[in-house]
Amino acid sequence: MNTIGYAAESATAALAPYSFERRDLRSNDVAIDIQYCGVCHSDLHTVRNDWGGTTYPIVPGHEIVGKVTDVGSDVTKYKVGDIVAVGCMVDSCQQCDQCHKGEEQFCREGMVGTYSGTDRITGESTKGGYSKHIRVREEFVLSVPDSLDTSRVAPLLCAGITTYSPLKHWGVKAGSRVGVIGLGGLGHMALKIAKAMGASVTVLGRSDEKKEDARALGADEYLISTNDDAMEKARNSFDVIINTIPVKHDVTPYMPLLDIDGSMVIVGQVGPLQEPSTVPMLMGRRQVGGSLIGGIAETQEMLDFCAEHNVLPECEMIAMQDINDAFDRLEKADVHYRFVIDMSSLSTAS
Amino acid sequence: MNTIGYAAESATAALAPYSFERRDLRSNDVAIDIQYCGVCHSDLHTVRNDWGGTTYPIVPGHEIVGKVTDVGSDVTKYKVGDIVAVGCMVDSCQQCDQCHKGEEQFCREGMVGTYSGTDRITGESTKGGYSKHIRVREEFVLSVPDSLDTSRVAPLLCAGITTYSPLKHWGVKAGSRVGVIGLGGLGHMALKIAKAMGASVTVLGRSDEKKEDARALGADEYLISTNDDAMEKARNSFDVIINTIPVKHDVTPYMPLLDIDGSMVIVGQVGPLQEPSTVPMLMGRRQVGGSLIGGIAETQEMLDFCAEHNVLPECEMIAMQDINDAFDRLEKADVHYRFVIDMSSLSTAS
Repeated sequence: MNTIGYAAESATAALAPYSFERRDLRSNDVAIDIQYCGVCHSDLHTVRNDWGGTTYPIVPGHEIVGKVTDVGSDVTKYKVGDIVAVGCMVDSCQQCDQCHKGEEQFCREGMVGTYSGTDRITGESTKGGYSKHIRVREEFVLSVPDSLDTSRVAPLLCAGITTYSPLKHWGVKAGSRVGVIGLGGLGHMALKIAKAMGASVTVLGRSDEKKEDARALGADEYLISTNDDAMEKARNSFDVIINTIPVKHDVTPYMPLLDIDGSMVIVGQVGPLQEPSTVPMLMGRRQVGGSLIGGIAETQEMLDFCAEHNVLPECEMIAMQDINDAFDRLEKADVHYRFVIDMSSLSTAS
Repeated sequence: MNTIGYAAESATAALAPYSFERRDLRSNDVAIDIQYCGVCHSDLHTVRNDWGGTTYPIVPGHEIVGKVTDVGSDVTKYKVGDIVAVGCMVDSCQQCDQCHKGEEQFCREGMVGTYSGTDRITGESTKGGYSKHIRVREEFVLSVPDSLDTSRVAPLLCAGITTYSPLKHWGVKAGSRVGVIGLGGLGHMALKIAKAMGASVTVLGRSDEKKEDARALGADEYLISTNDDAMEKARNSFDVIINTIPVKHDVTPYMPLLDIDGSMVIVGQVGPLQEPSTVPMLMGRRQVGGSLIGGIAETQEMLDFCAEHNVLPECEMIAMQDINDAFDRLEKADVHYRFVIDMSSLSTAS
C-alpha cells in the first residue's frame, strides 16, 4: 500500500513530506494506522547519521501508537480496532538464546530496528513511525492498556522502556536509592518509573534550573553536581544511578555517589566518555554499565506497569509539519519533556 | 619490642635496614615471627608515593606468613606455634554494615592498611611485613592450612584474594568462561584460581611471549590482543574478564569479548583509563567494575580453597637484602610470577 510520511533524503536535509510503499500484509503482520509518534533524540542522531549506517531516505520514529486496521491470517493476539504500540524493534531471529530469553534487543543475529533497519525477508530498509501507516510482525506489536491516555503513551516505547529495563535489571524496588542524572526525555521517565517502583529518587543537574520541575515530577531530592560540598555529602547514597547525559562527559565525579556495590547505568551517551578513574570502582566495587531498551515481553510489562501506576510522560504535542522546528529545539534541550507528533496532522499535510 | 626490617625514608630512597618498635602485645593481639613476605606491586607504588598519602619511613609488605610466638589474654583462635598469615588489612571498625557483612575492605570508617595505615588506637603509622615481627589483632590473622607449602603461601594474601574475590563475586563456577588480561602476579593467580573453580580460562597478552607460560600454568586458550582477527573471532566469548593491566589503557577493545551481561573487573590499574566508548556497554549490557582485595572471612575461604585444590603461586625466593634489585625487576615486569622474601635472611642482615 502507498502511505505518506516525513523523510530526510540526506544527513544534511530537513525532513519533508515523502510518499512510499508499505509492504503487502504478511500472514503474521498487524496493519496499524499510526495515531501518535514520539520524537526521540535517536531520531535526530540517525537522520544526521551521527552513528553511521543510516540509509536514506530515512523515515524516523520508533515510539508508535495506533489502531489496528487489518491483521494477517496467522495473527492471533490482535484484532481490528485494537490500540497497539510499536517500539524500537520490528523483528529478530526468534531462535537464539537471547530471543528465547525475551531479550530480542540483544538478538545474536541483530534485532531489526524500526527505521534504518534491514527487513529480514526483503532486505529493504525499514521505515519508521513518522508516517500514517505501518505493518509490523505480530510478535513486535504491544498492547496499549485501555486506561492509558493514548496521546501520551508513545514515549514509553523508547524513553519508558530504556529506563524501566535497567531499573528492573539492577533490582530497584521499594526503598532503593536511585540517582537520575539529567532531566530530559529519558531522565523524567526514569524519575517517574523509579518513584512508581517505590524508590527514593534524587535528580542530578548541573544547576538549579530544573530543581522545581524535578520536585513537581516527584523527585525526593535535587543535587547540583557542580556543588562540591553537596556532592561530598551525597557520597555512598545511591544503589543505582541512571545516567542520561547524552554527550561525552566524565563519569568519575558521580561514581563516589554510588554506595558499595552500586552501579551506574549509561542510557544516554552513545560514544566516548572522558577518561574515567578506576579509583571509585576499586574502592567500593562500583560498576559502570550500559543498557539498551528492553525486550518485547518486558516492554509489555512496562506498559502494564505504567497503566497500573498511572505513569505517563510529559508531552508536548506537535503537528508533523513542525518536526524540523522540534528537531532544532531538541538539539537545544528545549523540550518538556517529549515531543509527540499527532499523526492526524499528516492527513492534511502535503 | 624492638624489631628490624627494611624501610624507605622517602619516595626517592632505596629500601634499607631499619630498626623500630612494635607495639606491646594487646589483649587481642597475635604476635608473629614473620617467615615469608611477598613483594606486591603496591609495595613499590606506596614506597614511591605514587598514590599519595605514604608516611615515611615506610616498611612495606602485606603478604605475610609466619609463626605465632605469643598471644594476648583474650585471643582464642590462635596459639603459640600456629602458622598464620596476614594480608592487606590489620584492623577496621568491626561495627558497620560492611564489617558485619565480612567486607572489612569497605569498612565505613576505612580499613587500616597493613602498612602506611593509621592504627585505630595510637594513631601511629602501621608498618608492614618487610620485617622480622608483627603484632596483629586476632580478627585480622588468617590460619594457614597445613597442607600448603608455607614458602609459597604469602602471595595468596594479596594477589590470591584480589583475584579470588571478584571471581567469586561475579559468579565464576564450573563452565564459566573467564578471560584474564595480563599474566603477572595477579594474572597468574586469576588463571590458577579460575581453573580450580572449573572455568575455561583464556589468557590475553599483547604478544605471544607468554603463550607457553600461560599454557603451562593451565590456560585453555591464549589470545593475542593485537591480533584483530583473533579478537573479532573471540567476541561474546567471556562471562567475566579479570583485567590486571597495571597502567593506563583503553578497555574498549576488550569489552566486545564479553558476552551479553558480562563484566570486566579491573584489579590492576589504580588511576585513569583512556577514554572508553559506551557502545559495547550499551550493545550487550556489559559492565566495567573494580574490586579490592576481599574480606577476612573470604580470605580464609580462599586459603582453604587453595589448600583443597593445591593452588599456589609461582614464586621466586629472594633475600631481604635483594629487595631493591627485586623492585627494579618488578618495574620491568621481569618476575615469574611473584617475589617472596625469605625473612630468615634478615637475621644476618644489618
